Amino acid sequence: MAAKEPVLDIACLDHIELLTPKPEQSLWFFRDVIGMDEVHRHGQSVYLRCYNDYAQYSLKLTEAKLPGLGNVSWRAMSEPALARRAEAISEAGLARGWSNGDFGIGRTLRFEDPDGHKMELFFEQERYRAPPDKASSLKNLPQKFTGRGVGGKRIDHLALLCGSVAKVRGFFQDQLGFRLREQVLYNQGRTEIGSWMSVTNVHHNVALVTDVRAQGGRSGRLHHYGIWVDNRDEVLRAADIYRENGIFIEAGPSRHNLSQAFYLYAYEPGGNRVEVYSSSFLIFAPDYEVITWNEAEREGGVYWGSKLPDSFLNYATPPIAADPKKAALAREVPIFDPQ
Amino acid sequence: MAAKEPVLDIACLDHIELLTPKPEQSLWFFRDVIGMDEVHRHGQSVYLRCYNDYAQYSLKLTEAKLPGLGNVSWRAMSEPALARRAEAISEAGLARGWSNGDFGIGRTLRFEDPDGHKMELFFEQERYRAPPDKASSLKNLPQKFTGRGVGGKRIDHLALLCGSVAKVRGFFQDQLGFRLREQVLYNQGRTEIGSWMSVTNVHHNVALVTDVRAQGGRSGRLHHYGIWVDNRDEVLRAADIYRENGIFIEAGPSRHNLSQAFYLYAYEPGGNRVEVYSSSFLIFAPDYEVITWNEAEREGGVYWGSKLPDSFLNYATPPIAADPKKAALAREVPIFDPQ
Amino acid sequence: MAAKEPVLDIACLDHIELLTPKPEQSLWFFRDVIGMDEVHRHGQSVYLRCYNDYAQYSLKLTEAKLPGLGNVSWRAMSEPALARRAEAISEAGLARGWSNGDFGIGRTLRFEDPDGHKMELFFEQERYRAPPDKASSLKNLPQKFTGRGVGGKRIDHLALLCGSVAKVRGFFQDQLGFRLREQVLYNQGRTEIGSWMSVTNVHHNVALVTDVRAQGGRSGRLHHYGIWVDNRDEVLRAADIYRENGIFIEAGPSRHNLSQAFYLYAYEPGGNRVEVYSSSFLIFAPDYEVITWNEAEREGGVYWGSKLPDSFLNYATPPIAADPKKAALAREVPIFDPQ
Amino acid sequence: MAAKEPVLDIACLDHIELLTPKPEQSLWFFRDVIGMDEVHRHGQSVYLRCYNDYAQYSLKLTEAKLPGLGNVSWRAMSEPALARRAEAISEAGLARGWSNGDFGIGRTLRFEDPDGHKMELFFEQERYRAPPDKASSLKNLPQKFTGRGVGGKRIDHLALLCGSVAKVRGFFQDQLGFRLREQVLYNQGRTEIGSWMSVTNVHHNVALVTDVRAQGGRSGRLHHYGIWVDNRDEVLRAADIYRENGIFIEAGPSRHNLSQAFYLYAYEPGGNRVEVYSSSFLIFAPDYEVITWNEAEREGGVYWGSKLPDSFLNYATPPIAADPKKAALAREVPIFDPQ
Repeated sequence: MAAKEPVLDIACLDHIELLTPKPEQSLWFFRDVIGMDEVHRHGQSVYLRCYNDYAQYSLKLTEAKLPGLGNVSWRAMSEPALARRAEAISEAGLARGWSNGDFGIGRTLRFEDPDGHKMELFFEQERYRAPPDKASSLKNLPQKFTGRGVGGKRIDHLALLCGSVAKVRGFFQDQLGFRLREQVLYNQGRTEIGSWMSVTNVHHNVALVTDVRAQGGRSGRLHHYGIWVDNRDEVLRAADIYRENGIFIEAGPSRHNLSQAFYLYAYEPGGNRVEVYSSSFLIFAPDYEVITWNEAEREGGVYWGSKLPDSFLNYATPPIAADPKKAALAREVPIFDPQ
Repeated sequence: MAAKEPVLDIACLDHIELLTPKPEQSLWFFRDVIGMDEVHRHGQSVYLRCYNDYAQYSLKLTEAKLPGLGNVSWRAMSEPALARRAEAISEAGLARGWSNGDFGIGRTLRFEDPDGHKMELFFEQERYRAPPDKASSLKNLPQKFTGRGVGGKRIDHLALLCGSVAKVRGFFQDQLGFRLREQVLYNQGRTEIGSWMSVTNVHHNVALVTDVRAQGGRSGRLHHYGIWVDNRDEVLRAADIYRENGIFIEAGPSRHNLSQAFYLYAYEPGGNRVEVYSSSFLIFAPDYEVITWNEAEREGGVYWGSKLPDSFLNYATPPIAADPKKAALAREVPIFDPQ
Repeated sequence: MAAKEPVLDIACLDHIELLTPKPEQSLWFFRDVIGMDEVHRHGQSVYLRCYNDYAQYSLKLTEAKLPGLGNVSWRAMSEPALARRAEAISEAGLARGWSNGDFGIGRTLRFEDPDGHKMELFFEQERYRAPPDKASSLKNLPQKFTGRGVGGKRIDHLALLCGSVAKVRGFFQDQLGFRLREQVLYNQGRTEIGSWMSVTNVHHNVALVTDVRAQGGRSGRLHHYGIWVDNRDEVLRAADIYRENGIFIEAGPSRHNLSQAFYLYAYEPGGNRVEVYSSSFLIFAPDYEVITWNEAEREGGVYWGSKLPDSFLNYATPPIAADPKKAALAREVPIFDPQ
Repeated sequence: MAAKEPVLDIACLDHIELLTPKPEQSLWFFRDVIGMDEVHRHGQSVYLRCYNDYAQYSLKLTEAKLPGLGNVSWRAMSEPALARRAEAISEAGLARGWSNGDFGIGRTLRFEDPDGHKMELFFEQERYRAPPDKASSLKNLPQKFTGRGVGGKRIDHLALLCGSVAKVRGFFQDQLGFRLREQVLYNQGRTEIGSWMSVTNVHHNVALVTDVRAQGGRSGRLHHYGIWVDNRDEVLRAADIYRENGIFIEAGPSRHNLSQAFYLYAYEPGGNRVEVYSSSFLIFAPDYEVITWNEAEREGGVYWGSKLPDSFLNYATPPIAADPKKAALAREVPIFDPQ
């Protein structure tokens, strides 16, 4: 048994930048409904953190004309790890230069995935220190649990739409060292509909799903961004809080078959899909066997019965109209664009 | 910032061997009360798995005169990782030769930690394949969730007593690549009472705690073995099941301050302490700052108020009588042996 | 404020008789999947209890050609209360004579509701005494919590289909003393689609819903039978257990708007719909104001978004084919028979 | 079987008046930590409600020199029921005249229990109507679920200390129509330590417990006031919120054997003990058999192991010093005053 040694150069998904055309309402949502805390403002951006995030912030909310994804920021394991990944990304022609970083973050490599999603990689980071009124009664909790709103605990994962899942999945594996965990493959395994990958023990740090509305073979769109809570009961409570605050619930609370996670999908006021996420399973096996699901096995993505709604398969940010010329492709990949 | 590159050669705690003087009752406990499944028998040992364990088994239950710990088995990330760790362990003089492995496991390095706890390290492993009647309706679940008893999901961690925590902690860090997460330090930081460490993103794969009854500076004893469940409600349900089955509940359900975990401690019929464990937090920061707690901060180990009982601090397997000559030491480390 | 004094002569829903064409599989479902215990057999019937049922049994499972409802058994508050209700029922022309009772039950009035559902009312009852191996470690729990399967705690409620909800609702109010809690009214309040009523502090002991396939103005059919569990997490767990046991999940786990309950609907192997049910709310106000919902407010019966499936509105036991002549009615009551 | 017909004249525990020497901090506790809403102020009193309370308020918080209980207000089933109870109370010599009621409440009978606890009984009540900004998205929920703090759902029960439990218990049964559910009896049943009673289907609306510090045979003291939440997970969450807000946790979260309830006890800033309470069981049997527990069976009041702390048995409001002359009694009733 000659297993290749895994590349373990990326530590985690550190934070994402979310674009919103309704900055005030989006800020209300993440602060008062999800329960995050504002830690910084700069230009058109507000920086927010969940109470258990180790980093200073896990969300940079930036005003923009359209909703969608700004930068996705990964943290490297060490400076040498950063250098190794920078070299691999450069060789793939996807590096876009170094920056001096952002709030609380040092020298940063800017790059793109093959689909055009903008990303960053850095190692150096200032530690978060809670101000006295935010200090927790738990010495190992970076910040007080306020109990406000949903009480999102920490950033969990990201789901990206891609013109070609296979191409982006290969980049994540080969250049970044992600390990593949689950796949949805249609047409007897010939069409890669979705791939779930991680650099940590969590089931996935990133999910890649086919965008049948991809333009010129590229999507650059965000499917959703996932926030962790510890217990399924907190996901149920989140649904109540959403309803009382007029937040549109798209799907859930229910349980996925893929990832086994307990989920709740909603749209924040700016239009981006946000998931409140719990349970799932951790992966410890270094030779984990990728799980694949075909058309029939997928059962609409839900373990307990009712399928995910069509909007889940069609709506993403920024929204784009269905291209009539894509009808043929849409028929081949019916689950993601049935019309 | 010149961070040393972490050693990432150990993938996980694969399984432990538990010794029991009451093999039939212990088997009943792990199978019918905890809800594990028997997968194999050999000699005086029964091999058991939780439904979500990726490995074939996470518990090897072996008849013995006294309760306690047999082998602790770690899995390496790869064959080269195994070779590197074998070299490091040998250099420390703690290697005890290679074996041909155990049920489902290939070539295995046998070693000891500096306290004398017997351990193993291997990479090669046969994958678990559920027999048809144990196949799950979830393609990514190794085995059916039976719902029997507590429904333990997977092995989580191990807590060892040590004559010298500092010595064993150093071995785990230097020879095995574990990262230190939390510590209890008494006497202005001079006495290392306990250390919690991991090789994965979970808070700890191993906890080391001072044994004030250590003999000749060594303990070799087991404090407890922890089994994961996904929700706090499952821990509460476990307590009800324990009471209805006459299992002695030592502490909990409650919440630790260290690790933040939601816990329930009981003694299996053979005498070993078993924890049902949930919540806690994952650690992603590559430069995670070790959290230390002193005498006052520790508050008896419980976040919500009532301290852990004395037995928690005095009882371990195999049990040994208090040595009157140890009274002086016991007074210095009062929390672990107040009499 | 001249409130009429309430009639408080009925204590509770004691048990129901369920008919099944697959007695062995239905027994397996209620015993091994739901977790009830068999307490008695007689003729083609098996008597089963939940661990918290105060009565000897809450389910009498009887072999029959078709699934559906046998008798519904209510318990009176006292012998005088039984006599008063017997008189009122007789005056309404719905009494069907007295029987000597059933297993563990004394003199019993047999009657029908105006729709033809067969019912019973009695007071005298032998107390349940757990055999030694079923005795609980809790002195106030009638029987050991076994933790088997779903772990249904006690019978909760019943939902009946009716040709005329208004007529049956009036009978429950006037002859039996039920209080009306919630209603679904269509056509500006002119069409009574459903009514939820109770004789206790629970939200409803019986729900009545229009059967658009009623024949000759009568239905006699069962919509579902509800079993209580204490926590929402147990409902989620039930869904996992259903999937692993091949039980068809029709709807949920999710939250109703009416009753606010957290629900899970499935079909037992004999074809009857069974609900696992939690949360909801208790009603203490003696002048509780009936809540009414119109077409728009009802939102498909679900608080969190996705509507109940069509089968929920069309399928009942015994199943009957759609009558084409009923199309007109079905169009008026579209939610219950849209084709 | 000649069962006496039950008196069903009292509908529920409507609200209590709590006295506090720290009105601002107590208000902060009930509003921001428990999550109640202020609905009215008058004189030294603030009126507060839980989101699911049907009445306008369930707590009247009144400034006073010492903490303790003001009035306990029960609601009658109807005007005739009120008249019947008024007659019975008057005959027992415990009526203290009629008042014109309080905020939102009509004509009210004032009375005392035999121990001197001040009580009220009324029927007429204005309905609560949520202002627009408090209206819920659930038509059957009186008020929006805000998710603030603990999120107490509704008033549940009251626990009173008594010089003679037997005397007060008799009054509740005979004059008010309460049914006895559970008792703690010491000395082979000769000493009535505690009695739990209800007028509804909940396990107890009032608990009576011996006060070994009773003066002149009377106590008049409050042991605690219980607030309901629907799920055990909400009780766990409450404990976290208490710790982060510096609220002293006296006991729990854990499970009682009596009542089977899942509990959390804390002191509000004014000094009164408050319970967050869930699970327990409903009682439907009209001939429910009283459960009695003796010294050994009681096991310190906790189902899962660790006993309730001494403070639980000694502290009440208003606090009074231990009377050395009561030492003899205290020794007879050791669990409530062991020193």
